[in-house]
Amino acid sequence: MADDVSRPVTISFIAESAGVSVPTVSKVINGRSGVAAGTRARVEELITRYGYRKTAPAQRSDVLELVFEQLEHQWSIEIIRGVQRVVRGNGLGLVLTEFGPDRSTIRYWIDDTLARRPACVVSVAQLSSGERDQLRARGIPFVVLDPIVELPDDVPFVGATNWSGGRAATRHLIQLGHHRIAMIAGPGHLFDLARLDGYRSALRSAGIEVRDDLIVTTPLTQEHGQVAALQLLNRPDRPTAVFTCNDLQAIGVYQTARALGLRIPGDLSVVGFDDVPIAAMIDPPLTTVHQPLTEMAAAATELALALGRGETPAQPGIELATTLTVRSSTAAPAA
Amino acid sequence: MADDVSRPVTISFIAESAGVSVPTVSKVINGRSGVAAGTRARVEELITRYGYRKTAPAQRSDVLELVFEQLEHQWSIEIIRGVQRVVRGNGLGLVLTEFGPDRSTIRYWIDDTLARRPACVVSVAQLSSGERDQLRARGIPFVVLDPIVELPDDVPFVGATNWSGGRAATRHLIQLGHHRIAMIAGPGHLFDLARLDGYRSALRSAGIEVRDDLIVTTPLTQEHGQVAALQLLNRPDRPTAVFTCNDLQAIGVYQTARALGLRIPGDLSVVGFDDVPIAAMIDPPLTTVHQPLTEMAAAATELALALGRGETPAQPGIELATTLTVRSSTAAPAA
Repeated sequence: MADDVSRPVTISFIAESAGVSVPTVSKVINGRSGVAAGTRARVEELITRYGYRKTAPAQRSDVLELVFEQLEHQWSIEIIRGVQRVVRGNGLGLVLTEFGPDRSTIRYWIDDTLARRPACVVSVAQLSSGERDQLRARGIPFVVLDPIVELPDDVPFVGATNWSGGRAATRHLIQLGHHRIAMIAGPGHLFDLARLDGYRSALRSAGIEVRDDLIVTTPLTQEHGQVAALQLLNRPDRPTAVFTCNDLQAIGVYQTARALGLRIPGDLSVVGFDDVPIAAMIDPPLTTVHQPLTEMAAAATELALALGRGETPAQPGIELATTLTVRSSTAAPAA
Repeated sequence: MADDVSRPVTISFIAESAGVSVPTVSKVINGRSGVAAGTRARVEELITRYGYRKTAPAQRSDVLELVFEQLEHQWSIEIIRGVQRVVRGNGLGLVLTEFGPDRSTIRYWIDDTLARRPACVVSVAQLSSGERDQLRARGIPFVVLDPIVELPDDVPFVGATNWSGGRAATRHLIQLGHHRIAMIAGPGHLFDLARLDGYRSALRSAGIEVRDDLIVTTPLTQEHGQVAALQLLNRPDRPTAVFTCNDLQAIGVYQTARALGLRIPGDLSVVGFDDVPIAAMIDPPLTTVHQPLTEMAAAATELALALGRGETPAQPGIELATTLTVRSSTAAPAA
């Protein structure tokens, strides 16, 4: 009976399949408490399996939920602005949640915050498949912004063309005449890998050997960039240029270069990634790959709202183009 | 009749005084549409004059509204984090609104967003007296964070000890041996004036003449700091130290100093104000007055929630202490 999917998927069908009452299923769908964890999981699993959707959504508060893993100084504001622009245009409010470093508030968010029944969710935080199921069970559409892991095909997302960005940054250095180009890579998020592969691809296209000893993998902070740069620049055949996986790492490279008495760009060219506001403020202003965070956030919000209206977007996953912003940290290598 | 304030201030009393129906007053209180602007203003004025407060507030959504004039990269995240910490601890959601540079969304915010009936409002934006009246008329408590203008005594606020911060920054330079200390001041916000007066006070306490030609007043941006520094440093008796009204101006001073071939701190000491994240990242790391934005935001949120519970806080206006963070941009003047 539970496998007879030709039958319309109603709330009673789910209840029957799960062996629970209709009010229990209703509680799960509406994010109410008073359902045992095992029962809740079973009901959610069935809702996901049979694709049950509420045809007449319960009254939702007129808000969109924006969820961050952690609010970061250098780029969260761009995202908030992009989302705000669109929700404002749609007469919605913006509810902001930060899970925090230990994701301690996830349970709170899933159990309590979603009881607000937002029109939709834009998540900069990575949602586990269980968390995505819980949102689906509540009929709340969501879009993942700038995914850091591979997502199943049915998860709508908006990202940036990280591979192309990495390629453009590296090609810029090659065109200036650099051959010994190092990369400080990221710890393995999806976008880190794409940027690194873009670097490799540009080298290969130019007939330059990709040398593993010129690639250092490290977290995306200034401090780690500083240490990685020391490893790269403290060698006899030091690279004449460094491409970093983000701008904070590039600032770390600046510090190490100064400590070693190397001038930028005279002795060392540096290209970052992201184009956070600080990139234009440091000395010399940083050449970097611009990631259109505000536009990405606006696009993710538009997509989430479209899903909330029951529309089926032509493209449930898109990447917006990055562009190289050339400032003063890159030049031809010293003769 | 309307002036008989011994009579309990009820919704019918307000209606009678305004010469309108009770449902009309109710609409105004609950932020609903369908009331002529003139009528709305008259009702709000009466509500403010007689101090009417709803004794049984209508059902409120479990959210706190945080309002910014404009989201700024270098410090808005600190504020959001502080507010978030407290709302999370209270099981509330956080709704974020940005008025935008032209305050174009104020009408939208007052008319539509407040219909969400937030538990309370924390406003980094300056609210006009009319806007404050509208909030009062709706029975929504609010706290102003970091006020930029003088507020009436009955407006709760949380700020920072800006005068003391300006004094500490200047005293630090005096103790290093500087006498010719310039100040790049802000355009006249309340906290700009306090920082400037702190500078003047420290000089006077040390018996150093306050020279108006060493004070340049300019907006709080890097670009304006750069231009102001040119004016100060391009003179024969150039100052040996500069105290700036914020960190962005200090970054502008760095740029001008480099352009003029002046080393920091060898030729010029620089002290900023705010201690935004970038202050520690620039070269040399900036000595600056730390403003505890996260704690200020948390305190403002606690205060707003207390007001929302009907409590009368002992201190409806407080300033949290600033502290001098000494890094590497200050040293004794060259002999």
